[in-house]
Amino acid sequence: MAARLPPPGADFTETTVTTRLVYDGGLVKLRRDEVRLPDGKPAWREYVVHPGAVMMLAFVDEATILLERQYRYPRHRHFIEIPAGKLERDESPLATARRELVEECGYEAAHWWHIASLDPSIGYSTEVIELYGARGLTHVGHHLDEGEHLETFAAKLADALEWVRTGLITDTKTTFALLWWAQWGRFPTS
Amino acid sequence: MAARLPPPGADFTETTVTTRLVYDGGLVKLRRDEVRLPDGKPAWREYVVHPGAVMMLAFVDEATILLERQYRYPRHRHFIEIPAGKLERDESPLATARRELVEECGYEAAHWWHIASLDPSIGYSTEVIELYGARGLTHVGHHLDEGEHLETFAAKLADALEWVRTGLITDTKTTFALLWWAQWGRFPTS
Repeated sequence: MAARLPPPGADFTETTVTTRLVYDGGLVKLRRDEVRLPDGKPAWREYVVHPGAVMMLAFVDEATILLERQYRYPRHRHFIEIPAGKLERDESPLATARRELVEECGYEAAHWWHIASLDPSIGYSTEVIELYGARGLTHVGHHLDEGEHLETFAAKLADALEWVRTGLITDTKTTFALLWWAQWGRFPTS
Repeated sequence: MAARLPPPGADFTETTVTTRLVYDGGLVKLRRDEVRLPDGKPAWREYVVHPGAVMMLAFVDEATILLERQYRYPRHRHFIEIPAGKLERDESPLATARRELVEECGYEAAHWWHIASLDPSIGYSTEVIELYGARGLTHVGHHLDEGEHLETFAAKLADALEWVRTGLITDTKTTFALLWWAQWGRFPTS
């Protein structure tokens, strides 16, 4: 059994004094808050307000998943990723996952289960990504969003893991999902 | 041997038409670019311009590393993380790692080696995090930046990995480092 976390030595909570939307773009919303530090001093924090996202290990069979290849403009290159997407307003993470698997990859899945949660950018974003597993795939045809360009392919988990080791896959959600599954992955029995 | 990546089916490169700094904060710099999509249509991309960062597995012994506990305002809670920090201007990643290990944890390390690279937020940030290993630690006393509040503790790798499995550790850089090392970690022989 794992040791418990050591008891906190101190409470470092920062309390909000004021909050202000400083940039409201089509994709990125940025806030700048005045805060009070645990020692009582004033400071400020800037961060992206994110609606949350999902990602999925979509199993073609027990050893094979769907991957995507797409261009990521901020890094000016193509990336290999698992299917993923952002929550729309009032959409649950599972509903988002179902929607994105059809839109991006053209598949519906009979069985879905939650695997883990990931905080990809705790220094400057509120984003949380929920990881789901999906199996029992049926091809229904994809319909990418306007302006979305990507291609989907099936890959062996063992190969994808090797691509993490050799640095061909460096996207954080994809490395997390592949490494987590390699360590603890087990299909739900029901 | 792992299979090669399938050959690209298409080039999805998006080319820059204009680029504009739309927010220049103390922490976050945000750009909005007009781009040309692979099908020739116009679009825009918003993204955080990040100087890059480092993170480190700092080994107290072969089975024990340094962890930190700190409050992350965007997520409004404390997180367990490995030591990390952002590059300062003209600073190399390794120099940043050496500096941050002293500043945050109070240790110098005799041996450093590069382990892997991680792209934590390819949808809306240029950030890349370089993961280093450090061993041969000597305590020299820490000196946190003004306004920086955190505590450092040593933990068994096996316990930290279990904290990933149970969701006590969800920070992406920390989960990546722990899972990567659990899968492939090996100390350099020289």
